[in-house]
Amino acid sequence: MLHRAQPGRDLYALVENFFRNDFQTENELITEAVRRMLDAGGKRLRPRFALLAAEAVGGDAAEHLRLAAFMELIHVATLIHDDVVDNADTRRGVNATAVDFGNRVSVLAGDYLFAWIFKNVTAEYAHPIPHVLSATLADITDGEVLQLRALGDLETTFANYVEVATKKTASLFAASAECGALAAGASPFAVKALRDFGTAYGIAFQMRDDLLDLTADEATLGKPVGNDLRERKMTVPLVLALESGDREFRSDVERFFAEDDDTRERIAGIVAGIGIHGGLAKTEAALAGYLERAKQSLAPLGNAPARTELAALADALL
Amino acid sequence: MLHRAQPGRDLYALVENFFRNDFQTENELITEAVRRMLDAGGKRLRPRFALLAAEAVGGDAAEHLRLAAFMELIHVATLIHDDVVDNADTRRGVNATAVDFGNRVSVLAGDYLFAWIFKNVTAEYAHPIPHVLSATLADITDGEVLQLRALGDLETTFANYVEVATKKTASLFAASAECGALAAGASPFAVKALRDFGTAYGIAFQMRDDLLDLTADEATLGKPVGNDLRERKMTVPLVLALESGDREFRSDVERFFAEDDDTRERIAGIVAGIGIHGGLAKTEAALAGYLERAKQSLAPLGNAPARTELAALADALL
Repeated sequence: MLHRAQPGRDLYALVENFFRNDFQTENELITEAVRRMLDAGGKRLRPRFALLAAEAVGGDAAEHLRLAAFMELIHVATLIHDDVVDNADTRRGVNATAVDFGNRVSVLAGDYLFAWIFKNVTAEYAHPIPHVLSATLADITDGEVLQLRALGDLETTFANYVEVATKKTASLFAASAECGALAAGASPFAVKALRDFGTAYGIAFQMRDDLLDLTADEATLGKPVGNDLRERKMTVPLVLALESGDREFRSDVERFFAEDDDTRERIAGIVAGIGIHGGLAKTEAALAGYLERAKQSLAPLGNAPARTELAALADALL
Repeated sequence: MLHRAQPGRDLYALVENFFRNDFQTENELITEAVRRMLDAGGKRLRPRFALLAAEAVGGDAAEHLRLAAFMELIHVATLIHDDVVDNADTRRGVNATAVDFGNRVSVLAGDYLFAWIFKNVTAEYAHPIPHVLSATLADITDGEVLQLRALGDLETTFANYVEVATKKTASLFAASAECGALAAGASPFAVKALRDFGTAYGIAFQMRDDLLDLTADEATLGKPVGNDLRERKMTVPLVLALESGDREFRSDVERFFAEDDDTRERIAGIVAGIGIHGGLAKTEAALAGYLERAKQSLAPLGNAPARTELAALADALL
């Protein structure tokens, strides 16, 4: 296997450059809405996964830029719809698409983007890549519906949580790594290793997102602290804190979800309770476990430099 | 070419039967939402187009039921999102999905259904069928965005209208006929004939829908009369009535769109104005022209019984 990773190359810059110069749909308004979301930032993790996966199996990142871009665009399309679903005001610190363009255009823009991606993928890539991507979108939305149904449900178990995180978040990381590998002609063995990496990384990624919602400040988040609690989302710190079995804490959370008191003080009280009942510490331990699993998945890839970079992305989550 | 159309077979019943016994997604809530929409009725025109197209080129309808069902499901998914976009209260005479399940689930249910369709189509059908379907969904949403941008725009021309109707409505009829033909192994010549039929039929179908919104009663429509006017949609009767150049009528429509008076009397006045300025008669003429064009497209198919049935579907629109 030939490893062509160039030490000087910057995958983030490659992806940004592609979006700046080569991205355009046939609908102006939608191109503009998507560019706005892309300009607002983001680490481009999913395209980098696709490119690193291609390199890890001997491919050349530059040849798979379009495929990598599709991964970010699927993410952007789901964000556009999420903001309609969540009635979000801001996303990545700027107005949500739905705020500037209205819910109507947001629903249609997301639909158009999904369709545009599949139209291009089915024209440019052979089976099973189009299938992997559409199955992934089904998983993402299935996971979001499951999450919506579990809002405020204190019976949610850690296993329920992992199922939702796997579908909603990890499936796109898994697909990015898988498709990058497939496009570069990887063996089924290497494809599976990279997909497994993406899945474990993605679960850890969601856990970190849940943690940040409770512990980071508003400026860093680009959205209000405790937003998940306001939305009555059963995040992993909350699920694990409830597992401690403390009745008073459980009743307090029940009251919080039932009442309509979303003040900073009330939120801060719930966050403190989650900390006291081990929710933060147990989440950190679970997160570290998934990252370990992610890195172990990469073993079949030998010593490819891209493998080291993928492992470094996992370490960066800690 | 062997024509296997059985005179006794009922394509509508075949499709209904398929939905009743063989349709199920992996997400219960979404399966339920889709079944509710299917149970509310509909003529299943798009699946019938796919099956008749398959028969017209010598295929067996029973072998293409799943593909035909996907066409109806794309239609259902777009309806679920349309009702979010339009804030519709009823659809086919029953509550819109968004009313019973909420906008959040409606957005996600539509997304899931699109993804589920593509996941299955990419697993079961060879190129170019998955590409035709995703390009069609891109056209549908592109057309809806164009329509949204043209709301209340009195400068809309007949050509603008036809572009929107072609994308938003006709593209799925065209794709249904095209994919039915492709799946049955038709020649490129026959595929094009059937696609052209679907396009011309679909434009006429949208024109008839526009007419009915002004002339039918609420019980028949399953939604309020003049709903398109309330939504400030530039329907073809309105576009053609404005073409008459009557300044007073134009000012009246301008005022109607600017003010917020949606009473039955006000709507009835606008409808009367459309009639007086030839909007209804000119729409009927344009509609008849497209149906004629649709039937002429079928010439390359010879004397297949399914060709006669497609022509009869066109005649039924008059």
